[in-house]
Amino acid sequence: MSTTPTKSLDTFPNPHPDRDYVITFDTAEFTCLCPLTGQPDFAHIAIEYIPDELCVELKSLKLYLWSYRDEGAFHEDVTNRILDDVIAAVHPRWAKIVGDWNIRGGIRTIVTAEHGNS
Amino acid sequence: MSTTPTKSLDTFPNPHPDRDYVITFDTAEFTCLCPLTGQPDFAHIAIEYIPDELCVELKSLKLYLWSYRDEGAFHEDVTNRILDDVIAAVHPRWAKIVGDWNIRGGIRTIVTAEHGNS
Amino acid sequence: MSTTPTKSLDTFPNPHPDRDYVITFDTAEFTCLCPLTGQPDFAHIAIEYIPDELCVELKSLKLYLWSYRDEGAFHEDVTNRILDDVIAAVHPRWAKIVGDWNIRGGIRTIVTAEHGNS
Amino acid sequence: MSTTPTKSLDTFPNPHPDRDYVITFDTAEFTCLCPLTGQPDFAHIAIEYIPDELCVELKSLKLYLWSYRDEGAFHEDVTNRILDDVIAAVHPRWAKIVGDWNIRGGIRTIVTAEHGNS
Amino acid sequence: MSTTPTKSLDTFPNPHPDRDYVITFDTAEFTCLCPLTGQPDFAHIAIEYIPDELCVELKSLKLYLWSYRDEGAFHEDVTNRILDDVIAAVHPRWAKIVGDWNIRGGIRTIVTAEHGNS
Amino acid sequence: MSTTPTKSLDTFPNPHPDRDYVITFDTAEFTCLCPLTGQPDFAHIAIEYIPDELCVELKSLKLYLWSYRDEGAFHEDVTNRILDDVIAAVHPRWAKIVGDWNIRGGIRTIVTAEHGNS
Amino acid sequence: MSTTPTKSLDTFPNPHPDRDYVITFDTAEFTCLCPLTGQPDFAHIAIEYIPDELCVELKSLKLYLWSYRDEGAFHEDVTNRILDDVIAAVHPRWAKIVGDWNIRGGIRTIVTAEHGNS
Amino acid sequence: MSTTPTKSLDTFPNPHPDRDYVITFDTAEFTCLCPLTGQPDFAHIAIEYIPDELCVELKSLKLYLWSYRDEGAFHEDVTNRILDDVIAAVHPRWAKIVGDWNIRGGIRTIVTAEHGNS
Amino acid sequence: MSTTPTKSLDTFPNPHPDRDYVITFDTAEFTCLCPLTGQPDFAHIAIEYIPDELCVELKSLKLYLWSYRDEGAFHEDVTNRILDDVIAAVHPRWAKIVGDWNIRGGIRTIVTAEHGNS
Amino acid sequence: MSTTPTKSLDTFPNPHPDRDYVITFDTAEFTCLCPLTGQPDFAHIAIEYIPDELCVELKSLKLYLWSYRDEGAFHEDVTNRILDDVIAAVHPRWAKIVGDWNIRGGIRTIVTAEHGNS
Repeated sequence: MSTTPTKSLDTFPNPHPDRDYVITFDTAEFTCLCPLTGQPDFAHIAIEYIPDELCVELKSLKLYLWSYRDEGAFHEDVTNRILDDVIAAVHPRWAKIVGDWNIRGGIRTIVTAEHGNS
Repeated sequence: MSTTPTKSLDTFPNPHPDRDYVITFDTAEFTCLCPLTGQPDFAHIAIEYIPDELCVELKSLKLYLWSYRDEGAFHEDVTNRILDDVIAAVHPRWAKIVGDWNIRGGIRTIVTAEHGNS
Repeated sequence: MSTTPTKSLDTFPNPHPDRDYVITFDTAEFTCLCPLTGQPDFAHIAIEYIPDELCVELKSLKLYLWSYRDEGAFHEDVTNRILDDVIAAVHPRWAKIVGDWNIRGGIRTIVTAEHGNS
Repeated sequence: MSTTPTKSLDTFPNPHPDRDYVITFDTAEFTCLCPLTGQPDFAHIAIEYIPDELCVELKSLKLYLWSYRDEGAFHEDVTNRILDDVIAAVHPRWAKIVGDWNIRGGIRTIVTAEHGNS
Repeated sequence: MSTTPTKSLDTFPNPHPDRDYVITFDTAEFTCLCPLTGQPDFAHIAIEYIPDELCVELKSLKLYLWSYRDEGAFHEDVTNRILDDVIAAVHPRWAKIVGDWNIRGGIRTIVTAEHGNS
Repeated sequence: MSTTPTKSLDTFPNPHPDRDYVITFDTAEFTCLCPLTGQPDFAHIAIEYIPDELCVELKSLKLYLWSYRDEGAFHEDVTNRILDDVIAAVHPRWAKIVGDWNIRGGIRTIVTAEHGNS
Repeated sequence: MSTTPTKSLDTFPNPHPDRDYVITFDTAEFTCLCPLTGQPDFAHIAIEYIPDELCVELKSLKLYLWSYRDEGAFHEDVTNRILDDVIAAVHPRWAKIVGDWNIRGGIRTIVTAEHGNS
Repeated sequence: MSTTPTKSLDTFPNPHPDRDYVITFDTAEFTCLCPLTGQPDFAHIAIEYIPDELCVELKSLKLYLWSYRDEGAFHEDVTNRILDDVIAAVHPRWAKIVGDWNIRGGIRTIVTAEHGNS
Repeated sequence: MSTTPTKSLDTFPNPHPDRDYVITFDTAEFTCLCPLTGQPDFAHIAIEYIPDELCVELKSLKLYLWSYRDEGAFHEDVTNRILDDVIAAVHPRWAKIVGDWNIRGGIRTIVTAEHGNS
Repeated sequence: MSTTPTKSLDTFPNPHPDRDYVITFDTAEFTCLCPLTGQPDFAHIAIEYIPDELCVELKSLKLYLWSYRDEGAFHEDVTNRILDDVIAAVHPRWAKIVGDWNIRGGIRTIVTAEHGNS
């Protein structure tokens, strides 16, 4: 398997498509760059979704999150873009993302976006 | 009583079938093998259900969970299969499973599946 | 007042019957015997109820819980029986019990039963 | 300002009566006497309310809670009486009280009462 | 960029206006003065909102919160005023504020206000 | 047994005087009055000691701590006085007290005093 | 193996007598009776020791602790007696016990005794 | 009593000068300005000392800490200066300060200084 | 690299042999079998050591811990054997192991062994 | 001031060189690359030191830690190298580093190194 950062998310067939169930990925290892200052930003990212026909493959998710390491990205924007990419990859019945960004200027920023009805 | 791993779940009659009530089993002692690498995976498993005519016998549940120790199993699949086996054994009015899988590649995976309406 | 274990629950008139309000009793001091092995089991018990005309007297509740000390009792059954006895004693508008049983065979068991609509 | 215990609660005009919003007072410093034994009881008290035209003044609330220090009071009764006094003082659109009473006889007692619809 | 306290909140265009999502700012660094005694008060402030066309710029929020440092402000009033200013600046689809004020007279005060329907 | 507050501490013979061992009493239920304002103060009190010939009887300790309820007492002074009274009552080989006083003026005060060498 | 309460502690040969190492047993399941009132007391018990030639067998420890269930025992005394029995059974190079007794009269009691030099 | 910020610390005679004991003041309410940017900094401050002939008066400590509100102060310097001022005011047998400064640039800074031998 | 369980621990040269420093490995993923019943046991294992000329390679440690999966092993014995194997592999200046074994019979067992002087 | 990653650490004169005191920097924002796989690693880093004539400037520390972002570095090596660089920059009387590395292969690695005598 590849071990370089990539924007593509691999998938595999949902083994239980007859049932709505929730898969949550939770990581403390997300970093990108501040588009204004070029300095590193850090976040905890949690992705939840109800798979339809496809599931997100875990290792490719790791490489996907890695792909933001050298990109400038605003908190609000990148959190939504990750959700968009998950939606494009597996067309889930429902999905949600929480990006919990480390304190800057004394303020912690949490961005929560949802797709579909839970 | 048997003390070998087994896929069968013993049952006993629900002592209070006239009332909907929830039984939760919570264990930090689940392990199986990764189907790709053959290496051990570990999870916390919580099973909740509303019994109908039958309840799950605690000791047989321990032996049942043990039966996965030498099996290759994907996170998403095995979590659903445990739920299926509980349903097949006791036909609960409602059931739910949470499989909380230890960090791999910096990412923790939680699978939550439900049967029936709560 | 009595200081021996007893199955009877003393009551007193609800001082505010005009209002629905919730009384919660929470104790880490419940023990009975396993009906299969005769060995001690331990649980945390929480009882919640909305009183109607009567309230449960606290000291008699302590003696009531004590009365299980030398009885064999299955987790699922005894949790429901305590709820039944509270209902019989004070006929609450609503009641709920949570029995959180210590780990046996690596598995913690939580039984939650409710009476009436919350 | 007065610094003696008092049953009266001072008020001030709600600065934002056009909006429903919740004010919560939370204290670990409530004590009264057990009406049966005369011995001290201790509780955490939380008061929440949506103000209408009036708000509860913080310092008078402190003096009000102090006024129970030498009174005999049952857990269920006094928790409801505090709620009644808040209602009488500021006629809130909604109010709630939680009285969390320290362990007696191995049992912690929590009384939760609500006024109006949240 | 400015580094002096200011009542104005800078904004930027919502990068994903097609989707309802929640932005939360959480800070432990709010201080103002007690209008009665002139002494410092301290609070944790959390601001949540669903952006419409505009988002709140993080650095200007820091300068905005700083602007209260030398102002006398009642807990109930200032919490609502911050919400009003966020509404005026970005006209969010929904917004909520929690002001959690440090203990005075043994009592912690929490003010929670909401704008729009969540 | 008495159920009124008292300054005297009852004792019983140390059942294991041949061995140095530590007895710790820990309570969240101490209150006295501020000598300057007359208003209630609250503290957590922990008493540790190595008994010599005598032990402190638990119920009398409860009545002893109760005896401060209506007394004016400075944090530093009363914490030391409790230690003095324990020393006078049981002449321990070693003793220690921690008085952890609730926040006043935004400041929590902890007084720790020791008698003998640990 | 026996499944009745017993005062005897089974042992097995220390598998690594050449090395000082510490074995800790920690349980939340200890109960005895108050010698004054006959009512149940509850404690957490931790036993630590450095084995010499013998180790304490785990299942017999469970039966040993069970043997106190119907005995009247003062906190200070029973904690020391358990330590004495461990010493008599395995003659450890060092041993320590912590008995952490549930709140009675608002006071939690912790008894800590040690044997030998650590 | 004064209610304005001041650099002077009031004292009172140590009520138990015959005994070494430790007084700890712990506050979450310290703020000053960054000397480089003029922007607010925030810290938790803990002061511990063994009094000799004098103790620090609590209310004057509050006013003293307030006095830094409009001063520019480096983390390392101001933490030491507070310790110096406590030493100058009460000549303690021993003293220690911990200044725990909120995150700036992703880094939390803790400064710990001690006076005399503990 | 190998991905099968193995008793051998790979090493690499200590990059800073001139300095005593501590390396800690901490895992929640250890399982073996009970030698009496053949049923699975689970433990958290922490290994600390000061390297001399060699360090333990992380991936081989994972494979080494895996090698116990199908072995019967007593808590006291296996914890010491892991320490022995680390000593044999890298001859550390100092080493320590903590094996924290899940509750069996209501009792949690912690085994702590040390090699050399810290 | 510079805002690019750099290996140099700026310093400023110790404002209180007459006193031994400890400065601790604690960050959750350290990342480098695995030298074997090239994939990102993440760590919490804590640096403690007693300054002699010089202190580490906070902003330059941030840029210094950033400089590892694109470097391959083994856990044991890089933790020691950071300590070496702090020593070279400010010649502290004592220094200590703790590198707490995120879980890889189910194992968390903590490296702790010290310079001088504490």
